[in-house]
Amino acid sequence: MTCNTTFLGLGAMGGALATASLDADRPTIVWNRTPHRTQRLAGRGATDASTVEEAVAGDGVIVACLLDHRSVHDVLDPVAARLSGRTLVNLTTTTPSEARELATWAAGFGIDYLDGAIMAVPAMIGGPGSALFYSGSAIAFENHRALLDLWGESTYFGTDAGMASLYDLALLAGMYTMFAGFRQGAAMVGSEGVSATDFATRAAPFLAAMTGSFASTAAIIDARDYAGEGQQSLEFTRSALDAIVQASIDQGVSIEVLRPVHDLVRRQITAGYGPQGSDRVFEEMRSTR
Amino acid sequence: MTCNTTFLGLGAMGGALATASLDADRPTIVWNRTPHRTQRLAGRGATDASTVEEAVAGDGVIVACLLDHRSVHDVLDPVAARLSGRTLVNLTTTTPSEARELATWAAGFGIDYLDGAIMAVPAMIGGPGSALFYSGSAIAFENHRALLDLWGESTYFGTDAGMASLYDLALLAGMYTMFAGFRQGAAMVGSEGVSATDFATRAAPFLAAMTGSFASTAAIIDARDYAGEGQQSLEFTRSALDAIVQASIDQGVSIEVLRPVHDLVRRQITAGYGPQGSDRVFEEMRSTR
Repeated sequence: MTCNTTFLGLGAMGGALATASLDADRPTIVWNRTPHRTQRLAGRGATDASTVEEAVAGDGVIVACLLDHRSVHDVLDPVAARLSGRTLVNLTTTTPSEARELATWAAGFGIDYLDGAIMAVPAMIGGPGSALFYSGSAIAFENHRALLDLWGESTYFGTDAGMASLYDLALLAGMYTMFAGFRQGAAMVGSEGVSATDFATRAAPFLAAMTGSFASTAAIIDARDYAGEGQQSLEFTRSALDAIVQASIDQGVSIEVLRPVHDLVRRQITAGYGPQGSDRVFEEMRSTR
Repeated sequence: MTCNTTFLGLGAMGGALATASLDADRPTIVWNRTPHRTQRLAGRGATDASTVEEAVAGDGVIVACLLDHRSVHDVLDPVAARLSGRTLVNLTTTTPSEARELATWAAGFGIDYLDGAIMAVPAMIGGPGSALFYSGSAIAFENHRALLDLWGESTYFGTDAGMASLYDLALLAGMYTMFAGFRQGAAMVGSEGVSATDFATRAAPFLAAMTGSFASTAAIIDARDYAGEGQQSLEFTRSALDAIVQASIDQGVSIEVLRPVHDLVRRQITAGYGPQGSDRVFEEMRSTR
């Protein structure tokens, strides 16, 4: 086996991944659909492949960081039959179902498939705070740890190729929803002339501190015991949300983001669970599969 | 002026406030609609008033911590005419509009009105991490700081009696929405058997770290400049949310909480702003007053 590493796709993220490989003095082959993006890396010592066939001609690991699931097939279907026995690390953003489809597709060609999800922006790759999630082939994860660890902290989530993506998207679901909540609060105080910057100085430490309650919320959800001691009741939460929604309306602020949060609590009370803990809303959110 | 402090309402929170007063050896008068709640505090040295008239007979500050806005009128309307020149600190949970109504009502009777919002649970009162917001009478806030500071860190938000409540509800809007996002992520990974407890160990530090981005989001919102450098575009955010929503659907998880977050981004793109920063959704949330 050669030490060549092939990078397919040199967008901002693909370029950062390939740059980390070059910085570690690894033989690096690069290819991009629009060739001009390979020039900067070729100037730093990468081998500039003009076709996918040329890029995958060796026998090293192949790293894909393309636009989407469809692009992976577009780029690799024509050469798949020649990749038997090779390792494909796919860092293209996909859904769990798409990652699983690619794992099945790869298995059909004897390709060892490792799916990855990147918990970092391109500028963070190779630096502190960069974390990457992997799932799929355990052998691929072990054999190529030296490469993977160049990009950030590597965590393996098991043989189901969809798990890295699922965990990544679950954290992002939390993040985007949290930001929606921050904007809601900023809009509320903003209605009286308070700047979002002022609000951020209080909201950031407050919400950061409140993440300390995730563990106790999680324990309740895992036990499915919403009648235990010390839980904030659905009725209490409803009163608070009634006030938040009314205040938003009174101040001329949209309640779109708050509506599902409010509705979940109200429906649980209508169903007769008012005195139980407010984490009971999870019963309406959890998977029905 | 006597040093007597009158506490009206001895629920979990009212009881904690009165207890802190007793712990500081202040002469404390207590009243509750259902009298049995006053007994424990009377045993610790509080004066147990059997009627509201008796509770407010002196000339000290009156602290109300009742069920809701309506209860404040029910309890204080009959004695309001006798309270001229007195100070009322109202810690009952109200909306900003309700706090303003009470301030106007109090002014009509010559009562000095300070509205407060409590950023703590009862067990935290008087301990580290307890914070209380105040707005309304600046004189009341200054004159009674010794009392207020017994309960937690005191912050004054100006003469508009609604501001303490508005700021409090804005932070709670962020908190409840963040918890909805945490539950969404827990439901997503839970669909593959990952415990919410496992998810919390990653989600808590990740979301706590992401609160560090509130300041840059706030600066963009305050400047209303969504075309500047380094902003994550609406189009990029839409791709991520498309994947999160699709993954939730594929895994049998509700998308109710995600829908408004997704819709805001999609509408901004439909309106032609796709390449601009994703904080632009704030333009649809901000107050129209």
